[in-house]
Amino acid sequence: MLVTLKGKVLPALKHVPVLTGLRNARKPSGQNVHIRACYATSATFQLLENCLELNYKGTPMHFNYVWLRDHCRSASSYDSSTNQRNLDTGSIDLAIRPDSTTVEDGHLVLTWPDGHVTKYSLSWLADNAYEGKKQGTVQPRILWNSEIYKKVNVPSAKWDTFMSCDNELKKFLQNYLLYGFAFVDDVPATVEATEAVTQRVSLIRETTYGKMWCFTSDFSRGDSAYSQVALDRHTDTSYFHEPCGIQVFHCLKHEGTGGRTLLVDGFYGAEKVRQKSPENFDLLTRVPIRHDYIENTSGHQNHMIGFGPLINVYPWNNEVYQIRYNNYDRTVINTIPHDTVQRWYVAHRDLTTELRRPENELWVKLNPGRVIFIDNWRVLHGRESFTGLRQLCGCYMTRDDVLSMARRFGLQA
Amino acid sequence: MLVTLKGKVLPALKHVPVLTGLRNARKPSGQNVHIRACYATSATFQLLENCLELNYKGTPMHFNYVWLRDHCRSASSYDSSTNQRNLDTGSIDLAIRPDSTTVEDGHLVLTWPDGHVTKYSLSWLADNAYEGKKQGTVQPRILWNSEIYKKVNVPSAKWDTFMSCDNELKKFLQNYLLYGFAFVDDVPATVEATEAVTQRVSLIRETTYGKMWCFTSDFSRGDSAYSQVALDRHTDTSYFHEPCGIQVFHCLKHEGTGGRTLLVDGFYGAEKVRQKSPENFDLLTRVPIRHDYIENTSGHQNHMIGFGPLINVYPWNNEVYQIRYNNYDRTVINTIPHDTVQRWYVAHRDLTTELRRPENELWVKLNPGRVIFIDNWRVLHGRESFTGLRQLCGCYMTRDDVLSMARRFGLQA
Repeated sequence: MLVTLKGKVLPALKHVPVLTGLRNARKPSGQNVHIRACYATSATFQLLENCLELNYKGTPMHFNYVWLRDHCRSASSYDSSTNQRNLDTGSIDLAIRPDSTTVEDGHLVLTWPDGHVTKYSLSWLADNAYEGKKQGTVQPRILWNSEIYKKVNVPSAKWDTFMSCDNELKKFLQNYLLYGFAFVDDVPATVEATEAVTQRVSLIRETTYGKMWCFTSDFSRGDSAYSQVALDRHTDTSYFHEPCGIQVFHCLKHEGTGGRTLLVDGFYGAEKVRQKSPENFDLLTRVPIRHDYIENTSGHQNHMIGFGPLINVYPWNNEVYQIRYNNYDRTVINTIPHDTVQRWYVAHRDLTTELRRPENELWVKLNPGRVIFIDNWRVLHGRESFTGLRQLCGCYMTRDDVLSMARRFGLQA
Repeated sequence: MLVTLKGKVLPALKHVPVLTGLRNARKPSGQNVHIRACYATSATFQLLENCLELNYKGTPMHFNYVWLRDHCRSASSYDSSTNQRNLDTGSIDLAIRPDSTTVEDGHLVLTWPDGHVTKYSLSWLADNAYEGKKQGTVQPRILWNSEIYKKVNVPSAKWDTFMSCDNELKKFLQNYLLYGFAFVDDVPATVEATEAVTQRVSLIRETTYGKMWCFTSDFSRGDSAYSQVALDRHTDTSYFHEPCGIQVFHCLKHEGTGGRTLLVDGFYGAEKVRQKSPENFDLLTRVPIRHDYIENTSGHQNHMIGFGPLINVYPWNNEVYQIRYNNYDRTVINTIPHDTVQRWYVAHRDLTTELRRPENELWVKLNPGRVIFIDNWRVLHGRESFTGLRQLCGCYMTRDDVLSMARRFGLQA
């Protein structure tokens, strides 16, 4: 029952209750492999030269040996009260191999050359293996155009319940995660109530515009938002290294016409580009584009610069997690050669075309009492031109804070 | 003097004062190129099929035609009061070419098929061309080990002058940009004064730890910072999508021994890895690594997740702009296959080795009155274990805000 591993005689297994069979494995021809195979209904493993292969519930998974030592959850390696690593990764032998390996009571148990024992539950390994992760979605979403969204009839949260009941907040966050925006209704039409409804979700992110901002078309800041003109679809603060994660808008008053808010699901548009022209999609994920905010008024001097691709994807599963689209603030392209510039403009046109399709436009009227939270990494917003006095208040939030709150409720984000 | 461009007869140039000669250019064999060449002491150009080639002050530069229309600074295309684009990029013909092109009074003047005229100063084009940008440094820095830093004898700012004199703030920011940290001395040892000295620079970033935080080793939060133990070198908030840009620390009181602060220039270490093992450096810039903050106490529930490579570089010039290094909060690696995991651990060891060299460690004692601002994207910090009561206050700042302030003073960032 024993095979040598790096010249050492491995001790016999003491407890392998889940195993139905244990045998020396064949050494595949042409491979320098030391193998110990445990054939079981629920788990088998092989010690290959470069990794431990675990077969569990029909899925083969491969674990690097340094990884297996580095992720050890024993008290000396990991502080489960702070969820932080105690182990000095810098002290692990980069050629480390376990002296013995067993499967016991649904756990993989590894004894290392210095005698330290690492124990992983098989289900934890399955949850944390590359093989599962590379397929998985980080955040489930429902992509929408106007018709899809209207059909769902997503309910708004109600101020009273929202402020007092965790379940209402959880449902709100679930809708926010799925569709990229969500409403709270019946909010008192004041800056204070808007602040309170925001802080019920998480922290407010202060920016150069203040913590809570409240504006009319008075041109008080050097930005087109402070006017009455129509604004085409865009994401905000594209000129930050990390654009703000969430906008909160509350129209406190509007005595006039027009001023409807436009919402467009940027991820819906991005996926259409990916389907129709994968190479253009790919280019938009790779080329960093600069956006600027240059303000030089008597009261405000700012020069913000944000670099980033228009579409951001997780490299391991190609899931879109951020769109940065603002033709007003997009500034000089000077980090790519002219032939790539041409290809980028073609790709940008593809994306613009999708984002502008009338069927993808959702127009909503923000009336006093109705607060909207918009995922600024996903949903573009714009507005109709308007007449009369229109007073809007709102603020920004950081995505990390809002996602943390969602995870607290067990939501996948 | 006229050549045809797309079948059109170009009008004669009206004013070409900087030109010393103008002639029809040869068409290179095998290339479908329409050329108009202006040979001048200061500027010549050629209309190639795919781009306009401009030779100015000895540097050939290539401008895509859509780019030349898109970046137009005329009033109808660009709002110079808000520094935002007015032009609808989506309406530019992707095959656009100028009907006529001239160089006049140090400007490139393009007349487009619809009659619109675009005028660029040659120096603006030179400043904004890819050919210059790809070589340039975004932020000049002086990389340091302990000896290098000590030799420079960087002066600290002084509270009184710092709070009242812009030049003192500018010098402070210049040192901060160059070395990745800077001090203000003689600050009253209170939270209020620490807040004031921070707000003199820019906004405070509120996090789950509050706006200003003040802590002792009382374990009031689920993080090892709230203890007396030594902390190895690390960057903070690696579990944010965008780690906080700047930490501010002020030791208000310490009645005991130990507790010195360790500073290490992460970029110095990263450059050593690049010199010794470019492929390991490259791997550290490409593999996204997850960091977690999981807190579950009676008063605080958080689950923050940050993904990102340990080293971030601008793709066009390979300049390092961010290091994310926190072995405590680095969590499960599950987005890369096992063989890449092994290579990543080898690269991580290279970086760790450089960051741990004793000659790279700068130890400073933070005494009451001395406030330190640390670039958390560059300089790692740690601390000695200590005895007795040690009260520390501080806060975080967002990098965008601080860099904006630096740019306001004309500093390159």
